[in-house]
Amino acid sequence: MKRNLLLTPGPTQIPADVCAALGRPIIHHRTPQFQENLKEGIAGMQYVLQTKNDVYFLASSGTGGMEAAVVNLLSPHDKAITVEGGKFGERWTELCQAYGIEAQVLEVAWGHAVQPRQIKQRLDADKDIKAVFVTHCETSTGVTTDIQAIAEVVRKTDAVLVVDAISSLGVIDLKMDAWGVDVVVGASHKGFMLPPGLAMVAVNEKALRLVERSKSPRFYFDFRASKKAAAKNDTPFTPAIGIIVALGESLKIFRKQGLEAVFERCERLAKGTRVAAAALGLELYPDKSCLSNVVTAVKLPANIDGTKLVKIMRDTHGISIAGGQGELKGKIIRIAHMGCLTEEDIITGFTYLEIVLKELGHAFPAGAGVSAAKKTFEELPVAR
Amino acid sequence: MKRNLLLTPGPTQIPADVCAALGRPIIHHRTPQFQENLKEGIAGMQYVLQTKNDVYFLASSGTGGMEAAVVNLLSPHDKAITVEGGKFGERWTELCQAYGIEAQVLEVAWGHAVQPRQIKQRLDADKDIKAVFVTHCETSTGVTTDIQAIAEVVRKTDAVLVVDAISSLGVIDLKMDAWGVDVVVGASHKGFMLPPGLAMVAVNEKALRLVERSKSPRFYFDFRASKKAAAKNDTPFTPAIGIIVALGESLKIFRKQGLEAVFERCERLAKGTRVAAAALGLELYPDKSCLSNVVTAVKLPANIDGTKLVKIMRDTHGISIAGGQGELKGKIIRIAHMGCLTEEDIITGFTYLEIVLKELGHAFPAGAGVSAAKKTFEELPVAR
Repeated sequence: MKRNLLLTPGPTQIPADVCAALGRPIIHHRTPQFQENLKEGIAGMQYVLQTKNDVYFLASSGTGGMEAAVVNLLSPHDKAITVEGGKFGERWTELCQAYGIEAQVLEVAWGHAVQPRQIKQRLDADKDIKAVFVTHCETSTGVTTDIQAIAEVVRKTDAVLVVDAISSLGVIDLKMDAWGVDVVVGASHKGFMLPPGLAMVAVNEKALRLVERSKSPRFYFDFRASKKAAAKNDTPFTPAIGIIVALGESLKIFRKQGLEAVFERCERLAKGTRVAAAALGLELYPDKSCLSNVVTAVKLPANIDGTKLVKIMRDTHGISIAGGQGELKGKIIRIAHMGCLTEEDIITGFTYLEIVLKELGHAFPAGAGVSAAKKTFEELPVAR
Repeated sequence: MKRNLLLTPGPTQIPADVCAALGRPIIHHRTPQFQENLKEGIAGMQYVLQTKNDVYFLASSGTGGMEAAVVNLLSPHDKAITVEGGKFGERWTELCQAYGIEAQVLEVAWGHAVQPRQIKQRLDADKDIKAVFVTHCETSTGVTTDIQAIAEVVRKTDAVLVVDAISSLGVIDLKMDAWGVDVVVGASHKGFMLPPGLAMVAVNEKALRLVERSKSPRFYFDFRASKKAAAKNDTPFTPAIGIIVALGESLKIFRKQGLEAVFERCERLAKGTRVAAAALGLELYPDKSCLSNVVTAVKLPANIDGTKLVKIMRDTHGISIAGGQGELKGKIIRIAHMGCLTEEDIITGFTYLEIVLKELGHAFPAGAGVSAAKKTFEELPVAR
């Protein structure tokens, strides 16, 4: 079997214990046994999100969770701010438009993060705005947005703050209750090291009041049904049993290592990746004020075809990294730091990235990337 | 590890090869490797459905597929017939109502199947009806509806016929093209022996014309996006990678045994179950004109508490059978014939069903159910 190292920002590598859980005989969902899995899963999500709020599981990928947030909170003609600084920010706008919600787009230059004062200005100028949709880590550009500072602004208004934390959850910190975030959307195939097919949405009291009032049509994603079922430790429709059972194994890893240690580990990988890229003469794509510990986006020299690079890395060397999306196609590569990736994985990635970059005509001191990453990993204090 | 025999109508037992595929390291979805899985999965679904139509995969459970059919075909205020003869027929009505579609409910007594002439009368009386929503096997009552005869009626009109084949697909015959069915909705966790979390919807040309015209709001379930992505051998959003990969293993079983042999095997199990129930002095719930080879619903004597019976079977003996839903709660039990269940599984089921029935006070000749099932299995010709 050929190597298949996933340095992609989702799906990510699945640890052996989680793979084993996925391969176990299935159990029925209307049983005390599965109810236990569901309870553990919800409690684990609350642990990672540092919240006491309801968490609903949806059998869908992350976009289903985003759609659920939109239709449960807002009615047609309601006004919302959508922050667009990349492909996933654009998805909030598309979702609002699909449901007849007036999306007031706050455009941010790709590679930059929205500033809290920009959101404050918009909210001050129009008291009718009911929701602010932002992206915690914009995976397409490798930008992390300061959710804590934005929550500080939004919590003083009647609007709710809805955060797409699909790629960031379990990778970087998001203190839902302490920061006052109203809705958080996550998914299984990023920091939680599971296959795609499970979305999770955490909803606070302020948001639940909107859920009761929303007139948007909905059925499969209706949080009113989720809430009712949750009270009986159930889901309204057949849940993603396999993934929820395996989530239990994934959460054991989080509990054992501790949240802080998990975040620190991802940060180490990000730091090593950044210095390795610099040592190869490559610039980071995002502005240095908003670098992400979830995924690092690296600019390629003009003479390097990113699509070709990604293809050779995968087909010849068995290492999946992500290329650019939309306007960044062929121009950047993206290396993830989430889940169970290790320092060795990053070093392996750069070992072959050096080989392919050289082959494609980029000049740099041989071994510079690998050495820089190694040195960084040696010097950084190890997480407790 | 305690026995966990699932005689429930979904989720069903997962064969060892399929479990193994579910437990393999994950692959990325934007790769030639996964595109191959997707192509095989679609081709396999077309084989089972005996169709050349488009098949779209959705990362959702079956209800998501039903919602997708409703919102992609109809606009608010459109008229549709929904056939209600059990819990899943009611779901079509609820879905239409959630999206402002005028559901003209055709109520059928539980345990009976709708008659094609009833649908013809409704369609003749109102030429504005755009869709007819029916359930192939109504899992809540164990009734199979004659889809071929209904298609014969609907295909002569402008309306489309939409079939919930979630529990029947790969268990009993459904010749989409030969019968002229316009839309079929299936799911992974029934006849396909997979975990829940993948829905599949097959759509013909007549239905695709409605998809272009539908004004219902939709995004995650939008078939226009599915169609566009399918042309590039892709899905619009992150697919249920793990289940689609494992579907390949499941389809190998179908291809190896042949469709007819699979249907015959399920029929044998159904026949054995029926005679075993009779030998225990238990009546079947559905009318004998519409018995199902997917799941058998058996009436319980008035002195037997069905909820308790199901609980003892599961908690003491490790055998999951289904109880009644809605108005049938506690009054019936349901035993499935789908997927990889064997004659031995049915015999094991009845062995313990006899023990529990006796314990709960039901009188019958000891061993009668098991003997009757065995005799039937011995006498029935074996599938080629």
